[in-house]
Amino acid sequence: MDASNNAGKTLEAQAKAFFDSAPPLHNSHKISQDLNHFIQHNSSSLENGEARRIVCVTSGGTTAPLEQRCVRYVDNFSSGHRGATSTEYFLKAGYAVIFLHRRGSFQPFCRSLPDDPLLECFEPTNDLNIQVREAYSEALKRAYLYHHNAVTDCLLLKLPFSTIFEYLQMLQMIAISMRCVGPRAMFYLAAAVSDYYVPWKDMVEHKIQSGSHLLDVKLVQVPKMLSVLRKDWAPLAFCISFKLETDSSILLNKANAALDKYNMHAVIANELLTRKEQVVVVTSAEKITVLRDNSEYANDVEDPLIKLLSERHTAYIEDSGR
Amino acid sequence: MDASNNAGKTLEAQAKAFFDSAPPLHNSHKISQDLNHFIQHNSSSLENGEARRIVCVTSGGTTAPLEQRCVRYVDNFSSGHRGATSTEYFLKAGYAVIFLHRRGSFQPFCRSLPDDPLLECFEPTNDLNIQVREAYSEALKRAYLYHHNAVTDCLLLKLPFSTIFEYLQMLQMIAISMRCVGPRAMFYLAAAVSDYYVPWKDMVEHKIQSGSHLLDVKLVQVPKMLSVLRKDWAPLAFCISFKLETDSSILLNKANAALDKYNMHAVIANELLTRKEQVVVVTSAEKITVLRDNSEYANDVEDPLIKLLSERHTAYIEDSGR
Repeated sequence: MDASNNAGKTLEAQAKAFFDSAPPLHNSHKISQDLNHFIQHNSSSLENGEARRIVCVTSGGTTAPLEQRCVRYVDNFSSGHRGATSTEYFLKAGYAVIFLHRRGSFQPFCRSLPDDPLLECFEPTNDLNIQVREAYSEALKRAYLYHHNAVTDCLLLKLPFSTIFEYLQMLQMIAISMRCVGPRAMFYLAAAVSDYYVPWKDMVEHKIQSGSHLLDVKLVQVPKMLSVLRKDWAPLAFCISFKLETDSSILLNKANAALDKYNMHAVIANELLTRKEQVVVVTSAEKITVLRDNSEYANDVEDPLIKLLSERHTAYIEDSGR
Repeated sequence: MDASNNAGKTLEAQAKAFFDSAPPLHNSHKISQDLNHFIQHNSSSLENGEARRIVCVTSGGTTAPLEQRCVRYVDNFSSGHRGATSTEYFLKAGYAVIFLHRRGSFQPFCRSLPDDPLLECFEPTNDLNIQVREAYSEALKRAYLYHHNAVTDCLLLKLPFSTIFEYLQMLQMIAISMRCVGPRAMFYLAAAVSDYYVPWKDMVEHKIQSGSHLLDVKLVQVPKMLSVLRKDWAPLAFCISFKLETDSSILLNKANAALDKYNMHAVIANELLTRKEQVVVVTSAEKITVLRDNSEYANDVEDPLIKLLSERHTAYIEDSGR
């Protein structure tokens, strides 16, 4: 099927064309095994008789390759700070987290460390050895131990992606694997996903030659997979998507439009310059502004945000059980 | 001046239009100070009466933003492995190194460490503390101390870039600052530099809206700054550029063409899949295949490569002095 022309096709046909044209996912068997083990482990009852909730947090930006042997690609900027920080608070709120993240993006529990931890966290000793700097020793210990414990307790599963093809194939696998979790599943879709891509089969195999004065890159729209996720892949899951804009005047309208169009349970509206200070949770019934608590330096807007979403998720699960 | 139409302009006019249209470099004053201090420090005589040679190693890929408040950009893939590894061997060969690198790319002396050093280099102890894993302790110590010593001895200056605008502005500053070094200066241009960009003033300020089925991105050619570097910025320096192709059948012809076109002293030809095993040094007089020594696991193709280039640089300095 031709993926390069979506016009007039049903969404299902667009999605099928996208996946048919995508290069196969590496080690999909291993990913599938890890996923099933993680979901089964976290579906057995907790001490209070309830099963644990599982959230899939997506984080960082996807790339859209312009060449099959990828030298050039269009990248969507995202540090992954939102996804990584939210993962910490979801774990704190008792969730098991599948962290689907861009390779090399921000990781949970590493925020209080310097940019280049290896070179900044250590100092030389007099006997030509190295030691952890006093100023970073607590942060390093905390980062390591929280992360280590979450992974060994099977509460955190980290899955990396780079391209839009990898991201959407993995998201589909996760969603289908999580069907058995029903309404206890949440999708928290914070990744910055490419809107446009070059279908794999339309791409030149080798590096684009730089002969002419102009390069004209024609990209086609990525099918709106949020709709497919809600409708087909995981119809019972509680779904949160994000709307990031640099222009505040169109932000809430765009968030509202996304809520309707993709049938999300909530859309988190955030503006590029203030995104660490405040977000607006847009649902069909209300718009709630969530602010970072500025009384202490280390507070995050994700702290009240995840508390709010966890409460709404609880209500959603109760409603689903009636 | 309009940067969007290079056709028919002289190279000087194209370069001027590029720089006129570029957003101003952040902290250019600090960079200039650091550069001048570094170059002055390394221009005083060594014990043998000669002054130290200085190489500017460029490393990693540049981005070409598609929006002024950058969410989307075209990226040129490069891990920075070549530049980082070469930097180690240039230091070993007695050079002072200005390492102009893509933010977040591979760093010198960090090769033998795992991908995620923070989480893989440590292990928990019985008393709820952490310690460096025995398997990584030597590598970590070596990475830290070599790096630390090179920086504190003023033999390594690290300058990061992301966009093509930052890269070319910084390269120009470095080249002009290094003029006083004459033929003792080398440029080892291993960065993967964008061939095409969107002139800053042609860019939309806000995020491109994803309404239509097709996105048509029109990029214009980046002026061939290698020529400007050779001719105007640093006419006495020894200049090495790189040619990377995925298609081996056109590689040597492209390398030869680059040698003539930009008047380089050598072009290093390398193919994507075999670039860690072999490269070909193309000069006007010869083509020398340089192979990695496979007798030991840890050897690098950069070891014989930098030895060869250092010898050629010595001969070039002697020739210049006649």
